[in-house]
Amino acid sequence: MTDCVFCAIVAGEAPASVVLDEPGVIAFMDIRPFTAGHLLVVPKRHVSGLGGLDPEDGARIFDAGRRIATALRCGALPVDGVNLFLADGAAAGQEVFHVHLHVIPRRHGDGFGLRGVPRSPNRTVLDGTAVAIRDALSR
Amino acid sequence: MTDCVFCAIVAGEAPASVVLDEPGVIAFMDIRPFTAGHLLVVPKRHVSGLGGLDPEDGARIFDAGRRIATALRCGALPVDGVNLFLADGAAAGQEVFHVHLHVIPRRHGDGFGLRGVPRSPNRTVLDGTAVAIRDALSR
Repeated sequence: MTDCVFCAIVAGEAPASVVLDEPGVIAFMDIRPFTAGHLLVVPKRHVSGLGGLDPEDGARIFDAGRRIATALRCGALPVDGVNLFLADGAAAGQEVFHVHLHVIPRRHGDGFGLRGVPRSPNRTVLDGTAVAIRDALSR
Repeated sequence: MTDCVFCAIVAGEAPASVVLDEPGVIAFMDIRPFTAGHLLVVPKRHVSGLGGLDPEDGARIFDAGRRIATALRCGALPVDGVNLFLADGAAAGQEVFHVHLHVIPRRHGDGFGLRGVPRSPNRTVLDGTAVAIRDALSR
């Protein structure tokens, strides 16, 4: 565990600007924020990705993210909106392999957002993809 | 409710390619996908944003997202990773004002991702922001 920076933060062995510390979950400022107030919500129990995440820990991190997002929109920081973001796997942009939920405060015109071009597949394509995902879910 | 397209889908009054339909939660393909397999997880109960989201509905949508993401990485579709994304408020990119969690399958080099430049504030700045957010949370 000592090579996981988030486990070191959980253990109090690495510095962090902590926002919330509750049973099973901790939240602290991202040291490379996209916007002011960008923070990470992390299960205290080490797990690299969603596939191994305990459902209760999942509920804890999402609930903490929900409460922090709501507080951000009512607090002293200038916040017009919030993004929640989670990267599962290197291909999805995950850099620290301990599950973490990003909470990213937004302001109108801040320039942050998603990079991508949406497509418009027809209903037949969408239905076919839905069948493939339902199959994967039922295994 | 009739002017909410997601409520119409929940009511079976608008077309959707449904992936999952469970008590309190439904998931269906995004009609403007960033990648193949991009879908939305939606609480059946209408609520515009995170501030009004019932905590149990929050747990349901995150758990469904977690299970779908895990299935995607083990299923027939070519998936190397997954992003979960939620936009709360117009400034955060929210377009349909019924809470929804995006599940976005990723492949290496697919070109999708976050648009933004991370900063490197010092610890004093991070600590000050953390205090402001803790204050907002304690209200």
